[in-house]
Amino acid sequence: MSKANTYPVSARGPMTHDVRDQIVAAATEHFRRYGYEKTTVSDLAKAIGFSKAYIYKFFASKQAIGEMICANCLREIEAEVRAAVDEAERPPEKLRRMFKAIVEASLRLFFQDRNLYEIAAAAATDRWPAARAYEERIQQLLQDILQEGRQTGDFERKTPLDEVTMSIYLVMRPYLNPLLLQHSFDYTDDAPAQLSGLVLRSLSP
Amino acid sequence: MSKANTYPVSARGPMTHDVRDQIVAAATEHFRRYGYEKTTVSDLAKAIGFSKAYIYKFFASKQAIGEMICANCLREIEAEVRAAVDEAERPPEKLRRMFKAIVEASLRLFFQDRNLYEIAAAAATDRWPAARAYEERIQQLLQDILQEGRQTGDFERKTPLDEVTMSIYLVMRPYLNPLLLQHSFDYTDDAPAQLSGLVLRSLSP
Repeated sequence: MSKANTYPVSARGPMTHDVRDQIVAAATEHFRRYGYEKTTVSDLAKAIGFSKAYIYKFFASKQAIGEMICANCLREIEAEVRAAVDEAERPPEKLRRMFKAIVEASLRLFFQDRNLYEIAAAAATDRWPAARAYEERIQQLLQDILQEGRQTGDFERKTPLDEVTMSIYLVMRPYLNPLLLQHSFDYTDDAPAQLSGLVLRSLSP
Repeated sequence: MSKANTYPVSARGPMTHDVRDQIVAAATEHFRRYGYEKTTVSDLAKAIGFSKAYIYKFFASKQAIGEMICANCLREIEAEVRAAVDEAERPPEKLRRMFKAIVEASLRLFFQDRNLYEIAAAAATDRWPAARAYEERIQQLLQDILQEGRQTGDFERKTPLDEVTMSIYLVMRPYLNPLLLQHSFDYTDDAPAQLSGLVLRSLSP
């Protein structure tokens, strides 16, 4: 889980950075087992063998730890989506894979583990920065695929790119956002194919 | 569960039917004010001046009353959507209006009144018959518009009608279903136009 190492980490140097990672890794395991909402920083400190004061040296609050876990989780989904997109050659197939990978990776990461879902739901409800940054990166990835498809001649070019990006993002959103996804389990088998079919028809030149 | 009694109406005769309506009307007011979840049939009986036993002669449970209120609420949304569709002449405009009316009517009926939302949410979560029937009628309305658009030559005819209907229904679903709609308030201003634009591009012949 600790892919965190790669994001703009604090300038406190590598030692500090390791401790932060260690806390996040231990907290992930702890929240996974006992839930996020009902665990306090004291519980966490006791469980991982650090003092509460020591944890507070690195994280301002439980939410700050939750944000890091959430950021890791979203990075993991994003990496999976990017890998799926990169496997395809042409933009239409990239779009199909993007849709499929979003649904599969989100279902697995948010729902396999009901306790991680709690963190993802809090992130989406309160619009944590990690959740907003993730949405923006997904929109950017989508826009890159659309741009490429316009260049290859696979997609139409009349509609403004921003408008097309946003409307397709809206079609994907119920499967990206854990709060919506929890009410869409009946549709997750068929929706990726049906919706990417519709989206591709809308893009035909 | 006894939706059967009104749609179609029971064979018990008009008197019985009036009392049922009276109970439903009073219950709607009561739930509106005090909430659905925390009101018991006893509370309700006391408030509307009937005995509990008398209410139970007409409704098997609180949920049976809730189902009737929910059915009325969904019928109201549906009537508004149909009226909006009927105002338009051509199928593409009918689709646009359908989308817009769904969002507006659902927002108003489910959320203006937080206490009615509770009933709608229970209906959607537990898939009450009234909610399922509503989904089917909306799908049918959508299919009728698509069929008409194929006849007028406004819409393409290559893709199987069922597939097109289902994929557009999936695009509309986050705005039809109150559980999803509650997480989409940030998008309800722009989504109808953006999504119907996308859908209409996907339908172009």
